Amino acid sequence: MITSTGNQKIKNIMKCKKSARERNKEDVFLVEGVRMFAEIPEEMHVETFATEDFYEKNTQLFEHRVFELVSGHVMEAITDTKTPQGVVSIVKRYHYMPESVTDLAMQKTTPLIMALENLQDPGNLGTIIRTAEGAGVTGILMSRDTVDVYNPKVVRATMGSIFRVPFCYVDNLTEWIQKLNQSGYQTYSAHLQGTSFYDFDYQNPTVFCIGNEGNGLTDALSGMTNHKIRIPMMGSVESLNAATASTVLMYEAMRQRNS
Amino acid sequence: MITSTGNQKIKNIMKCKKSARERNKEDVFLVEGVRMFAEIPEEMHVETFATEDFYEKNTQLFEHRVFELVSGHVMEAITDTKTPQGVVSIVKRYHYMPESVTDLAMQKTTPLIMALENLQDPGNLGTIIRTAEGAGVTGILMSRDTVDVYNPKVVRATMGSIFRVPFCYVDNLTEWIQKLNQSGYQTYSAHLQGTSFYDFDYQNPTVFCIGNEGNGLTDALSGMTNHKIRIPMMGSVESLNAATASTVLMYEAMRQRNS
Repeated sequence: MITSTGNQKIKNIMKCKKSARERNKEDVFLVEGVRMFAEIPEEMHVETFATEDFYEKNTQLFEHRVFELVSGHVMEAITDTKTPQGVVSIVKRYHYMPESVTDLAMQKTTPLIMALENLQDPGNLGTIIRTAEGAGVTGILMSRDTVDVYNPKVVRATMGSIFRVPFCYVDNLTEWIQKLNQSGYQTYSAHLQGTSFYDFDYQNPTVFCIGNEGNGLTDALSGMTNHKIRIPMMGSVESLNAATASTVLMYEAMRQRNS
Repeated sequence: MITSTGNQKIKNIMKCKKSARERNKEDVFLVEGVRMFAEIPEEMHVETFATEDFYEKNTQLFEHRVFELVSGHVMEAITDTKTPQGVVSIVKRYHYMPESVTDLAMQKTTPLIMALENLQDPGNLGTIIRTAEGAGVTGILMSRDTVDVYNPKVVRATMGSIFRVPFCYVDNLTEWIQKLNQSGYQTYSAHLQGTSFYDFDYQNPTVFCIGNEGNGLTDALSGMTNHKIRIPMMGSVESLNAATASTVLMYEAMRQRNS
């Protein structure tokens, strides 16, 4: 059992916890909690650190997993949560190419793509990834200035969908929207000056573009999409939260596709 | 200008910022940021504290407002945000009765009620209130153990909807569901073992019940509702975030009611 935070492995995890640069360098991310631990794909799992108590209660989950037991003190040092569940895993990243995330060759099911521009709230990004899987989204494109998907708060909010939904960052999201337009996708920007989103058919290859929490989409990007769509709002609400707007759009596409 | 955190008014705000008990005792809550400041109903506004810089840039917003200027140092002490916008207001609470929140007499538009049981995440509650206004929800009932709606994180996430959506806490939410059943409302619990939510008509008086983030609704409450409804999910998603599920349901009701 590792009982000292001076241990080299523990020092590495603590660095990865704190620093995006360190996580990038190691090409990994950290995953906490029993539920997400159970869902880590075998080929992505590097090593798990667990308290003895957690191990004893969940021994069956450790089959085929490389792991080390750590003291409660060490667990506190490597966890990002206030009440740690007793398990932290190092997970290798899987790198998707944008061509595969968007299924540019349209070889699979009808693509349903979320394009996220400069989203900054980790909870929003994580929730969008979780809901995206539930709504049958086939891939997520993000502008390079979007919050780090491997930020522990994002990872936690995905509730495991981060292991399964294809995503990638691109240098020029607007160019990608153009490319998708030209490839026969219908591209839609969520926009306060748009047509009601109920007026469109999302049963063909579809891309929904969602902008930054404070400023919405850039004019360059929304100008590039085929349609500006607005989610009707009652009362004095001026806009919806980015994850909320994404949910409404993704579930409308799912409703149309399954009815 | 107030330049000392030893000032009695400032000391009171700092107490209200930190302690729900203090906010309850004073029967107020705190509101930050320019946008929400502009939306505070006149009859609820008590007093605003602003930096000179903020005041100079937004003088027109201060008409009919009781206010004091404070130094940057004092502003930092009374704000809950990392990058304060320079304005904090004390707002008097408005107390709704559950009979009015639910429109038990059904005197107004067709009621659309959210019943929240033991929600714990401030961001979820705030987002639900914001989305609720947008979707035309007429009132929100909360079990007593739900997170404090006047928690600064909740207030911020509502983006001003807290001033406009009727809400209240009740001691026994299950009893209220029973009462609404008996009064002709259709009550629905979001439940993983339910019928697809697309199969129902929400154009009549409707109550959606949403449970705790980790555990869902209690059996007592979901057993009391007329219907258990499930939001279809693809992939390996086991459940949706509480605010996400609420969004899907509220916007489906809105879609049906407006189409």
